[in-house]
Parts: sequence; structure tokens; C-alpha cells
Amino acid sequence: MTQLDDILARVDAEIPASLERLFELIRIPSVSTEASYAPDCRRAAEWLRAELDSLGFAATVRDTAGHPMVVAHGPAVAGPHVLFYGHYDVQPVDPLNLWHTAPFEPSLALQPDGETHILGRGASDDKGQLLTFIEACRAWKSVTGTLPIQVSMLFEGEEEAGSPSLGPFLEEHGSDLRADIMLVCDTDMWDRDTPAITTMWRGFVSEEFTISCGDRDLHSGMFGSAARNAAQVIGTIIGKLRNDDDGSVAIPGFYDGVVELPQAIADQWNRLPFDAEEFLADVGLTTPAGETGRSVLEQVWARPTCEINGVWSGYTGDGFKTVIPAEASAKLSFRLVAGQDPHRIRQLFRDYVESLLPPDCTVSFKAYAAAPAQAMPLDGALLNSARAALTEEWGREAALAGTGGSIPILGEFKRRLGMDALLIGFGRFDNRIHSPNEKYDLSSFHKGIRSWVRILSAFSETRP
Amino acid sequence: MTQLDDILARVDAEIPASLERLFELIRIPSVSTEASYAPDCRRAAEWLRAELDSLGFAATVRDTAGHPMVVAHGPAVAGPHVLFYGHYDVQPVDPLNLWHTAPFEPSLALQPDGETHILGRGASDDKGQLLTFIEACRAWKSVTGTLPIQVSMLFEGEEEAGSPSLGPFLEEHGSDLRADIMLVCDTDMWDRDTPAITTMWRGFVSEEFTISCGDRDLHSGMFGSAARNAAQVIGTIIGKLRNDDDGSVAIPGFYDGVVELPQAIADQWNRLPFDAEEFLADVGLTTPAGETGRSVLEQVWARPTCEINGVWSGYTGDGFKTVIPAEASAKLSFRLVAGQDPHRIRQLFRDYVESLLPPDCTVSFKAYAAAPAQAMPLDGALLNSARAALTEEWGREAALAGTGGSIPILGEFKRRLGMDALLIGFGRFDNRIHSPNEKYDLSSFHKGIRSWVRILSAFSETRP
Repeated sequence: MTQLDDILARVDAEIPASLERLFELIRIPSVSTEASYAPDCRRAAEWLRAELDSLGFAATVRDTAGHPMVVAHGPAVAGPHVLFYGHYDVQPVDPLNLWHTAPFEPSLALQPDGETHILGRGASDDKGQLLTFIEACRAWKSVTGTLPIQVSMLFEGEEEAGSPSLGPFLEEHGSDLRADIMLVCDTDMWDRDTPAITTMWRGFVSEEFTISCGDRDLHSGMFGSAARNAAQVIGTIIGKLRNDDDGSVAIPGFYDGVVELPQAIADQWNRLPFDAEEFLADVGLTTPAGETGRSVLEQVWARPTCEINGVWSGYTGDGFKTVIPAEASAKLSFRLVAGQDPHRIRQLFRDYVESLLPPDCTVSFKAYAAAPAQAMPLDGALLNSARAALTEEWGREAALAGTGGSIPILGEFKRRLGMDALLIGFGRFDNRIHSPNEKYDLSSFHKGIRSWVRILSAFSETRP
Repeated sequence: MTQLDDILARVDAEIPASLERLFELIRIPSVSTEASYAPDCRRAAEWLRAELDSLGFAATVRDTAGHPMVVAHGPAVAGPHVLFYGHYDVQPVDPLNLWHTAPFEPSLALQPDGETHILGRGASDDKGQLLTFIEACRAWKSVTGTLPIQVSMLFEGEEEAGSPSLGPFLEEHGSDLRADIMLVCDTDMWDRDTPAITTMWRGFVSEEFTISCGDRDLHSGMFGSAARNAAQVIGTIIGKLRNDDDGSVAIPGFYDGVVELPQAIADQWNRLPFDAEEFLADVGLTTPAGETGRSVLEQVWARPTCEINGVWSGYTGDGFKTVIPAEASAKLSFRLVAGQDPHRIRQLFRDYVESLLPPDCTVSFKAYAAAPAQAMPLDGALLNSARAALTEEWGREAALAGTGGSIPILGEFKRRLGMDALLIGFGRFDNRIHSPNEKYDLSSFHKGIRSWVRILSAFSETRP
């Protein structure tokens, strides 16, 4: 047996204990967007610090204006220096009534196909995924007494809230965090058998807006038809954000400068096994809702979109109230692609809404996050080493993929520290992240840890 | 002093005690649309029963499938027999944070113009208004020992919930309720100096619908643009209910058969003092939102409308959640005019929504209330007597008005018992009924009681 075989065997033997650690972390309800969970976010940070400390890392919890950061440095070793990034915060769990198990009481569920699901909020996004890397380090440490390369880690607790504290934190602590490359485990496999490295991802703009008409709710009998109705107005505006006929976004200027998908990437995507019908059928859909004439993969990875994430106005309780609402609000977000500036898109959206306002209406806007789309270079030595290591573990060539999601923090690292990133994740598209009944496949967890063991080994023989 | 003068003087002397009784009734939070207030609805019914009992009425509380009815019969007297109808239930109070005083803790607030406001939910609609009639009977009883005509009363507790139990109740108890005419005190004055009898009112259809796409909420990064978004779909549908360009309702067939306002009524309305700008300005608006080319009075009294009363979908809490909602719901209501069948309108609406559904969407509908528009004959003896009595009390000719609201129960009485109604109310258009900070002017209450005293007197000399 080689040393690598020993370490992989250690991973296999350690899985029950690794799962127990994942369960411990899931039990901490570290929801970053709800203020009442702030103490739990700190507990999750402290839990990570203690784990990393026990693995020989110099680990600290550092305060920010929001939830704290965990920064950890492994022993000084020759070879490439990597910074692993993950987030310990999770999405809210509502609607709670749709969960089949309590979201913060993790459990295992055996599936008919032989897979085992790890159930719980954060099982996949990002607690299960980030632990694949920590558990790989643990296996290296316990077999060899050290790590094969220089490893630093950074965990934040505001990824699901748009990472407001990350920029200032990098500004202040950049020199302590700079490495040859970032590693991130927050993405999916190509499919359940094919690993993937994600090399491009969409940008993001999130926004809330409120329409106000008149100075109070009115009675629809006394004022109905003569008084402006804020719920009607917001519906009309929402209806004009997308073009019914072709699924495109209707905001003037929205597509200006959008860069078409490079042919080489398009070709590789066409070769990969992807069943668009199955992708949609799995969530109960049959017909792509995006731009006519674009493939589903293009729609979700390479084309921008505008999505309403929430809307509310008037009386929404039991029974009926014949009110003409004076206020209506919506949350919406844009996914952007190369060539779109998030701040310009936000302004185009605001200008468009203003242009649609009927008399007697005002609108107020609240900005949440903003991040541009990004694409990584495809020819790096570390990328090639990681791809080879993944191919070895999974027995299939690792795909170079895109993602429709946004990882705004990578823009911060690129801009402030000049660092590129390798996005290697073991999620599956049916993991229900951000939805009720989030899960992570046990095979993702187990082979994910083994994959990182191999990648660390491969990096130790690579000159970045 | 005539006997009538004596009774009016008794009203004047009794106002503090009358107000104390109104406060008692407002303190009972009889919200009919929220199940948790059911015991309070019953308390309000019992309170009325006890009051009427103390005035010599044979008063009973009668159970229904919903909230109970109060039925009361005064002493047998010669002359016309009237049935006074009112409702003891009130609208929900949300948004509670916009109230300046607790909604169920009534108080008086002196205004700069010398008026005194009675504050509280139901102060006007309908507790203050119905008590004007009861207090008038009290004054008659205490001065003369009896009432000048035969008076029956019916109070229900589901008016704000669409009166679901009234039809069955009339079916069962019709013979006990039939009278020469109904009297209702649930409407407004023409303006603060001009009394009004409302002779036409709009019909009503209320409906809730839910759009469903796919089988769960999705992540807008993974699925954004390719997956159907229920919030987007409901916005698009809401946007297509009214025509932006001319404010009309866009449902095909909606205006079929609509009867134009009779010229005699239009002429009378044109002679009445009405300032459309002021009507809108009082609620913070400047521009009528209804059909282009129709006056504001026409829009709110004589033209049909479609109003969104509530809408909700996706994530509406603090912060942000990048979800593609799988469900979106709205409550909406139609106000109808003569010539529109409420059941046909409901079906036209449903057909229209179905026709607008994009692929992968389903819709479910929930029917609430339905009632046709009505118009009363303008040449009755009791109408003329009441109009003269009002003119005497207020020193201004009483207007014959329309109302944009709906009083669906009157359709039930007309259809099942053949009874017409006189709608005589002392509300003012700025009473904020159904809104936060509902109020009733003390002058409405005081002169309202005096008005009923005079009307009862006038009726005793009228052959119906």
C-alpha cells in the first residue's frame, strides 16, 4: 500500500465519526439572515475553530460588523499554498411545514436506489461540502502527522446574506489570507457519476422595492376603481419585467454587452451527458421558461435572468378583507453573465420601474448584494492536477462546468487579492439547497473527502 | 314643546350615556373573519340582546353555522312595520402598527375644526351607526313608554365575512322577519352637512386564487430563468386584469350588459356638491385610476371594477432568500353594477386566468361572496317621509345617492322576502372604515340619533 492508499483507507474507516461531526454542525441553526440566530452563527464559528485547532491548525474566530469569520493556518510546508473557503451559515428553513424531518435534527435516510441521504438544512450547502475538505485534512494529519501542502482556511457566516463583511475583512486581513489559489467546495458534480470543476458563474444583484399609493389602505367599495391600487401596480410592473412571448428580460439595456458563450465551452457542454427534460421533470416542470431558442444549460449557466423572490401586499390572512392596499413590496434578484455590470443593471432596473409608475405612486428601493459574473482561466497547472485527481477517484473524466449560481465572494478575492479559485464540489442538482428537505448524498460526502485527499496529494507534486 | 321636542331633548341629555354604551360595544373585538375572535362575536351578540331586552324588545340570540344572529321585536303598535338591520362584526385591524390608538380601546379626540372623533375599530362600521337607531328607540321609549311604530331588528355577525349564514337564516326565519321595509344604517352622508339616502349600490364578487408551478421552491442560481416562477406568473396575470391605457377591466366579456347610469340620477349627482379633487386629495391621491372619461363619482358608484385585495408569494421576511417560488396567491374582488351577473363574472375571471397560464402552471380558485348590484325605487311614501325628516334635522335637502360599496344582504332580503330597503347612514367618507384609525364623528352619532327619532315620528304618520 502506498501512503495515499493508507490515507484513503483511513477516510473509509473514519466515515461514521465524520458523519457524527457533520451532524453536530447541522444541529447548530446558523441562519445568517435572521437576527435571532446570531448566537447560533457564532456557535458554528466556534465549533469550526475548535475542530481545526484539534487538527493542528492555528485557528481563530475574528469579529466583523456581522457574523464572525474563522481563519486557520496549517503547519508550514513546502509546495503550493491553498486557501480553502467555505461558509458555515445556512438559508432560512421556511416553509417549515413542507419539511418531512426537522431541519436542524439531521438524520440518514436510505433510498430505494441504495444511496443514503444526509438530511438537514446545510447538509449540502455548505456544511457537508466544507467538511469534505476538513475531513480530508484530518485523514492526512492522522496518517502522516502533517499536511502535504500549505493549507489555510477561511469560513464566513454571511454567504447566504450576500457576504457584507467579507470585503472589509479582506481589506484588513488580506496579507494573512493570500495564497497561490483558492479552493471552494460549494458546487455540484456534473451528474451523480461525473465530477466537475466549475470555471464560470453568474453574477448577482438583489433588490427590494416598495410601491406606495395614497396615504393609507382604502375600502374597495368606497374607492374601488378610482383609487390607485398598489397591489395592482406591483403586479403590472412584475408582469413587465419579462417578455411573455420569448422569456427574455424586458428591462431596456439589460442585454447590452452580454458576452455569448465561448464556442469551446459550448462544445464541451454539448458532449456532456445532460438531459434537459429530466432536469426539469425532476422538479415537476416540462417547459423551459427562459429565452426561446436557448438550451436549458445555456439558460441556467450562460444567460442572465430576473427572478421575483417574494412579493406581498394587502390582506393575506384567513378570510377576506376588501382593502385597496396602499403599499406593495417585492424582492427580486438578477443573475448576470460576463459583460454585465451589476451596478448598471441595478440602475437600469430602477429607471425602468420609475418609468412604469402610474400617477400617485412612489417607489423606494433597497439594495442588497451585487457581484459580477466571472470565468476562470482553463490552463492552470493546479486546475489540471485537480482534474486528474478527480478523474482518478471517480473513474470518469472531470467536466469543466458553469453554474447559474453566484459566488460573489470570489469577485472580492480576485479584485482585492488577485487570487483565482478552483470550484470543486460534490453536490447534486437534486439536493434541494435553499428548499425544504435539503439533503447531501452520503456518496458525495464520502467520495468528496477521498477526492480532496487525492487533490492534496496531486498538488504536493505540482508547481503552481 | 311637542312630544318630538321632548324626545329630541332626551337624546341631547343622554349623549354621554349613549357614548358609554358605544364604547362598551367597541371594546368587544368582534372580528368575524378570524376564528380566534368567535367568542367575542358571541359576546357582542349577547350585549345587543341585553340592551334590546332592557328597552322592552323581545330579543333573542340565535345560532347559525357561523356567528349568531340577534333578532328583536318591539311592542305591537299600529302603523308601518320596519325591520332595522345592522352588523355587530368588524374588520380585522391589521396593519396594527399604523393605529395611533389601540383599536379596541375607544376614545374621543377633539379636532382643530371643533369636531370630536370617536376612535376605534367599528366606531363607524357598523357599531356607531347601528347604535344611532337603538338610541333613538331608547329616547322614544323613555319619553313615551313605547315606540311610535312597529320595530323589529336583526343584527348579524358575518357582514364583513360575506354573510354566509344569512341566506339560510332568512330561509328558516323569514316569516318572523318580514316587514314593510328594511332600514339600514351602514352608509355615508353626502358630505358633512348634507344627509343622504342611498338608493343604489354595487354588487360584489370575491375570490382567491393560487398559481402553482413545479413541485417545490427552487434555487434561483441553479434554476433561474429556466424554471417557471409563480410570483412572476401571478404578477403577469394581475398586470393583465386592468388595461393600463384606460383603466378599464381587461377580462373579456366583463362589460357585457352593463347598464349606463340613468340620466335623472346623473343629473342629480351633477347638482350635488362634490369635489373630486378633494375626495382623492383627502387620501393622498390626485388622479382617478378608473376608466378614462368617467367622472370619479361614476367610477366609484356606477362603474364596475376589479381590485387586488392581497397578494403573497415566496420569501417575504427580513433579509433575502434567492428562491424561485413554486406558489403565489392573491385575493381579489369585483364591484359590479346593474346588468352584471356575479356568477357569470366569477366564471369569466376564472376562464381568463386559465387562458393566461403559461406551461407548467396550474391554478386553483376559492370562491368567497357573490351579490348582484341593486337599485331601489325612488317614489315610495316611506322614502319621501324619511327624506323630509332628514331635511328637517339637517337643514339641507337630503340627497339620493349611490354607493360603490356592496350590501349583499339586501339582495337576500329582496329575493327571499320581497323587501326593499332605505339606506340612511351618517358616516363620512373619511371615516377610515376597514383601515387603521377608524373613526366616527360625534356629530354623526348625535345627529344620527336625532334623525332616527324624527324618521320614526314621520313614519308613524305615513301609510307605506
